[in-house]
Amino acid sequence: MRIAVIGLGLIGGSLAWDWTQAGHEVWGLSRNPETTRYAQDQGIISGSLKELGELAGEDWDVVAVCTPIGEVLPTIAALAEVVAPTTTVTDVASVKGSLVRSATALCAGFVGGHPMAGTAAQGIRAAQRGLFQGAVYALTPLPQTQTLGLQRLEKLIRDLGAEALICDPDEHDQAVAAISHLPVWVSAALIATASQQGSLAWRLASSGFRDTSRVGGGNPQLGVGMAQANQQALLGQLQRYQAHLAQIQTWIEQGNWDCLRALLEQTQRQRQQFRGCRSS
Amino acid sequence: MRIAVIGLGLIGGSLAWDWTQAGHEVWGLSRNPETTRYAQDQGIISGSLKELGELAGEDWDVVAVCTPIGEVLPTIAALAEVVAPTTTVTDVASVKGSLVRSATALCAGFVGGHPMAGTAAQGIRAAQRGLFQGAVYALTPLPQTQTLGLQRLEKLIRDLGAEALICDPDEHDQAVAAISHLPVWVSAALIATASQQGSLAWRLASSGFRDTSRVGGGNPQLGVGMAQANQQALLGQLQRYQAHLAQIQTWIEQGNWDCLRALLEQTQRQRQQFRGCRSS
Repeated sequence: MRIAVIGLGLIGGSLAWDWTQAGHEVWGLSRNPETTRYAQDQGIISGSLKELGELAGEDWDVVAVCTPIGEVLPTIAALAEVVAPTTTVTDVASVKGSLVRSATALCAGFVGGHPMAGTAAQGIRAAQRGLFQGAVYALTPLPQTQTLGLQRLEKLIRDLGAEALICDPDEHDQAVAAISHLPVWVSAALIATASQQGSLAWRLASSGFRDTSRVGGGNPQLGVGMAQANQQALLGQLQRYQAHLAQIQTWIEQGNWDCLRALLEQTQRQRQQFRGCRSS
Repeated sequence: MRIAVIGLGLIGGSLAWDWTQAGHEVWGLSRNPETTRYAQDQGIISGSLKELGELAGEDWDVVAVCTPIGEVLPTIAALAEVVAPTTTVTDVASVKGSLVRSATALCAGFVGGHPMAGTAAQGIRAAQRGLFQGAVYALTPLPQTQTLGLQRLEKLIRDLGAEALICDPDEHDQAVAAISHLPVWVSAALIATASQQGSLAWRLASSGFRDTSRVGGGNPQLGVGMAQANQQALLGQLQRYQAHLAQIQTWIEQGNWDCLRALLEQTQRQRQQFRGCRSS
């Protein structure tokens, strides 16, 4: 296929690289000429674009918008003016509901996407081949979404070695609020609590603390951006979370070890389901 | 040194193995004859004991009580009747305050200990050489603790490749409540919350969820045992944790992204201090 990737950061760069390797013709656009030069030198892209207008009058199969989430809609509005109606436009933003509805209204060829992979690093120099190997890649069509676009993206997702998962945009947002956005704050509150204990706690901390605190010690801009974009779903999950924790607190106060044991037996089983899903 | 290890599970077995390798004469005692037979066949111990009474009238430098936490005090009470006053008796329980005071009252040669390492596995077959390599090993003396016992244990800890950290028993319990016991419930509540979302959440979950949920999906018996043994300190930490989370909820409701960003910038810096400690 003939593909344009708009925004060559970690995600855009890694997608472009795998698609180039899979034999597609991939062009890249970045605000920073240094970035496109690096991407072309590394063989991440076949050619570079300087502005969206250059996409006009040419035959593109897929345009992937991989900008920061705040620039996705303005970019799609601009693309709708220049690309053919048969061009599939997609994005990689981690929140989908209202964004997908607005983008589809602007651009009939739009299909929302969200690859569930990443690293703590940022920028084109963090791009890597095989980043999405074995990962889930969510696609969030609306009833009016074009079948052609879905099929093209399913093919491109297979070329990444990833697994396409088709789901409703609002259900996607609820799910990622629970498994991706909530953990950031759960983990950050743990770091804040442990820090009140002073240096002894830091010296005694070992692998359990390291793992539980990882996402709360991650990229602040990313954590806040997700909370902002998925505010209502995150608040709902935070409320459910606090109810579980209040129940735990009551049981510990009461010395209700049987209920606490039953809870940990249940969460042990539940987590095994998750691991089973991922290893299959 | 001449050492007896009482209780040959993951911790007792791994300690015995490293000390045997370091050239000490290590005898083991287990309720299960199968366990001592395996330990002797593998070269984990040099000899086996059938009951505590066999320790009487012989010259032991160190007796390490590695039973489940509920059996530590009864074992030490029985040991105090049979071992010489110059024998150092230690334990490996993960909660120290009142246990150390009671054990010291029972047995003048007692020195509380807590190696900060482990795996999810249990039993002698999970024992491994080098389990404590690079780990912190807390020692929690009281003012009346014998210097000879501390020195012997510091030597044995060096032989494990671990780092001895001397701290107050009650401060130890506060610190482990924050960095080891609290994370279990923080993580379990996350699994319980995500499970309410159904299978889509499990399919979208990736490495961030995997890490944050690990200790909440661990050994239920261990998690409840620690809550039971360290109830008051854990409740205090849980309260502090809930206050941090309530603050985060308010900021998300208010859309106070600046305060949320400042918090994540702080937790990012704080966690880097922890990583620095561990890698040194």
